[in-house]
Amino acid sequence: MKGYLQVYTGNGKGKTTASIGLAIRAAGAGLPVLFAQFVKGMKYSEIGALERYSDLITIKQYGRGCFIEREAQKEDIEVAQKGLNELREILQLGEYKIVILDEANIALYYKLFTVNQLIDIIRNRKPDCEVVVTGRYAPQDLIDEADLVTEMKEVKHYYTAGVQARKGVEC
Amino acid sequence: MKGYLQVYTGNGKGKTTASIGLAIRAAGAGLPVLFAQFVKGMKYSEIGALERYSDLITIKQYGRGCFIEREAQKEDIEVAQKGLNELREILQLGEYKIVILDEANIALYYKLFTVNQLIDIIRNRKPDCEVVVTGRYAPQDLIDEADLVTEMKEVKHYYTAGVQARKGVEC
Repeated sequence: MKGYLQVYTGNGKGKTTASIGLAIRAAGAGLPVLFAQFVKGMKYSEIGALERYSDLITIKQYGRGCFIEREAQKEDIEVAQKGLNELREILQLGEYKIVILDEANIALYYKLFTVNQLIDIIRNRKPDCEVVVTGRYAPQDLIDEADLVTEMKEVKHYYTAGVQARKGVEC
Repeated sequence: MKGYLQVYTGNGKGKTTASIGLAIRAAGAGLPVLFAQFVKGMKYSEIGALERYSDLITIKQYGRGCFIEREAQKEDIEVAQKGLNELREILQLGEYKIVILDEANIALYYKLFTVNQLIDIIRNRKPDCEVVVTGRYAPQDLIDEADLVTEMKEVKHYYTAGVQARKGVEC
């Protein structure tokens, strides 16, 4: 079965959330999943919840545990590049049938690696591996490369009315 | 904590998937979740996957186990209305902190119940209950009622290139 490249982007809510859902659905079908998260590196509820599927879902975090403000530091780049190198090997081995690169678009946005580097490891994957890239600001080169692209578009958002992120709902 | 009304709609991939992710994230934070699914009523991998969270996520299916072709049958309407009545009580009791009404927009589209019926049970919920409605064709009245609306927009889709739904990925 050929694996495809899926991209979830846009300014709306639901990108990481959908990738969590994809991981769970695949695990529900008995497929081994890698959930790799760039930039964030924080212990969100979703990561905790996925731990219940530790027999099928492996979690890797390639972030420093804090959001990047304004521009990336040397350490942000190092940890992301290290992650990318690890992913290159993982994707070539093809142990996981679904590999989620959560917030990889944000890593691109902050220039932690280049879109060519990312596309290169995706092209060199074992062909039956499905790759899912999330995060706003997906670059056009990645969209061109992808088989499926969904834009999560914000139509209405209560944050603009001053609601803070709530544990178990947004984080 | 006040609960909000979230709507995920649009023709793109990721609506049910995001609602699965929301359920998992909430469960990861220890919140009790109801995942109610209209129309579909089939045993998708995602439903199977959620069963591992049966201590926190309750699943109810208010569909006849097949897709509706062209127009709804009397039985489709009966099972959806029965579901809606059950949900009315559940939402008033407020036992679940997150209630997902998956494909409720599709139920509206097929006129299994009216948008006024749906909005009525949502308005009469226990105030701390978060409600999530998914499905394409969200009607304007529901969008007006919602606190957060995300449109999943199809930018590119490999189905158009003839790929069938794959177990563990789409279903």
